[in-house]
Amino acid sequence: SVAAPAIAQSAPQVTWRMQSSFPNSLDTIFGTMETFARFVSEATDGNFTIQTFKPGDIVGGLQVLDAVSNGTIEAGHTPTYFYFGREPALGFGTGVPFGLNARQQHSWWHFGGGAEIINEVLAPMNAISLACGNSGAQMGGFFRREINSLADLKGLKFRIGGLGGQVMARLGVVPQQIAPGDIYPALERGTIDAVEFVGPYDDLKLGFHEVAKYYYAPGFWEGGAMLHAVFNLEAWNGLPKHYQAILRHAAEAANNWMLAKYDSVNPDALKELVSKGAELRYFPQDVMEAALSAANAYYEETAAQNEAFKRAWDSYRAFRDDALLWWPVNELAFDNFMARTRGRG
Amino acid sequence: SVAAPAIAQSAPQVTWRMQSSFPNSLDTIFGTMETFARFVSEATDGNFTIQTFKPGDIVGGLQVLDAVSNGTIEAGHTPTYFYFGREPALGFGTGVPFGLNARQQHSWWHFGGGAEIINEVLAPMNAISLACGNSGAQMGGFFRREINSLADLKGLKFRIGGLGGQVMARLGVVPQQIAPGDIYPALERGTIDAVEFVGPYDDLKLGFHEVAKYYYAPGFWEGGAMLHAVFNLEAWNGLPKHYQAILRHAAEAANNWMLAKYDSVNPDALKELVSKGAELRYFPQDVMEAALSAANAYYEETAAQNEAFKRAWDSYRAFRDDALLWWPVNELAFDNFMARTRGRG
Repeated sequence: SVAAPAIAQSAPQVTWRMQSSFPNSLDTIFGTMETFARFVSEATDGNFTIQTFKPGDIVGGLQVLDAVSNGTIEAGHTPTYFYFGREPALGFGTGVPFGLNARQQHSWWHFGGGAEIINEVLAPMNAISLACGNSGAQMGGFFRREINSLADLKGLKFRIGGLGGQVMARLGVVPQQIAPGDIYPALERGTIDAVEFVGPYDDLKLGFHEVAKYYYAPGFWEGGAMLHAVFNLEAWNGLPKHYQAILRHAAEAANNWMLAKYDSVNPDALKELVSKGAELRYFPQDVMEAALSAANAYYEETAAQNEAFKRAWDSYRAFRDDALLWWPVNELAFDNFMARTRGRG
Repeated sequence: SVAAPAIAQSAPQVTWRMQSSFPNSLDTIFGTMETFARFVSEATDGNFTIQTFKPGDIVGGLQVLDAVSNGTIEAGHTPTYFYFGREPALGFGTGVPFGLNARQQHSWWHFGGGAEIINEVLAPMNAISLACGNSGAQMGGFFRREINSLADLKGLKFRIGGLGGQVMARLGVVPQQIAPGDIYPALERGTIDAVEFVGPYDDLKLGFHEVAKYYYAPGFWEGGAMLHAVFNLEAWNGLPKHYQAILRHAAEAANNWMLAKYDSVNPDALKELVSKGAELRYFPQDVMEAALSAANAYYEETAAQNEAFKRAWDSYRAFRDDALLWWPVNELAFDNFMARTRGRG
């Protein structure tokens, strides 16, 4: 169903299938894919239809990129860091521990070389990606007991995936991989000690606060997690140029929809969590510092072994250093003053 | 040339004229309109052409909304707060002193009622607006002498426009309205004491650092200034629905282009300014606090007199209070840690 030939008519009928890596119960993340599909349909007067699917409908949630690569589906909605085990550089497409925030990640993607770097890695996999969504900084998750120092991490069974899990493992954490539907009972029984998921809006729905009291911030392994619309490269290349443009702009618009929706619903969810007994905590300074050192060690080790990772890391780190020179001068000076004087007006 | 009839063909030829309020020397701001026009052309296979113009080509930079309203041009690129003198509520479309940052403003616009509120105000002016660009937090500008306390603002001749100028006037500042091309000589001669413009990238080009040493942060009157694509309402209503969708998505994509471009070029410009002698300063706490009080007093007074302003302010303030409850818990905790540990990796 892929590899459509180049089409001469100005508004050809196209029907694609697109699967998300995330369950439709996560209405903001899953809704971003639905919004993207709706935008594409609206912009083509209904001529370009993208049928949306949830994990398991066609392939599993972690097989979205593979299914796109081999042409089982033309499109997927997934974060490239799900596939960093295959190509570590793909971590930077979404974000890495102590990485860029949402706005910085978007700037790196479009003006810092990010899109080119990630799409060079994806090309041999027969895929191409567009930025399509961001969660903003994620929360650190729910913990059954307080973390007062680095020592409290030793042996902690923490449901955390990907690169964040690898960094935490260097601090003594035992990372757990558990499907979303199985987290609550594991946390309730004490099979795991902690879980990180997304942010207040999604975390509230899963009810973790009922079985783990302490809600930690910040989720330093996901300071601004970018999602992607990924496409089979032959299917993409077979589109008329103006359909490619429509996909690009729809992805940018859907990207904003997701971040703006989270920013609008997270405050009320946080209030509700706190009203139901969640206690906010910050990770202790020694935990943050040790995790930063562990992350940097990981990046250096991986860059020494993997050329694509090194190219991505060099670009990303240089962008981050520049962004962090400018951010506190102005953006953070404004944000911090506003936070400090909240409620005055 | 406006009020085109509803068109039956699927890809009708449309040619519109669009003028910016900003000179083309500001390549990021002016470039946002050009990018928007290019995106629309690409998405319609060249069938929808938007010709772009700079201030003075058709009307003056501050007459863009009027020209759109009366159909002289179909489209404009301008911030709605340029017209707050006519309808104070239009200030919130762009942002107000001590308002929302760029991400919060975008969330308010799409999910907090912002777009509906602003477009209700624009409808009687025969216009409709889309979000189309954001500068991020702007700098406080260049000052010939240091501001060490509130007393130093008395009689200060400060080139600052709009609502920011009105707030500063309550602190003893004498706001000056000077066209961009005339600022440098006025600052050099001492006719004015200070100037605020945009941020490092644009400020550097105008050379203010050569004649005023102190570069202040943050520009608390513009914490995240949103720009708009504004359209003549009849011209907009005459478009096929899918062309309206294409304009909506192109505006979102151009919005991101502007913010991402600024975020990528401001750090180097800041370094260059500092290397050329600019000295960074923060506004003293008493100045910030007094300005906040003055701004809040202005909002309350205006809300008591103007129903549309009151509706906008009530919505905006409630959104801001919620956003500022959530922001420091996580987003700022992450950003501040990253700023503090810059250069470790």
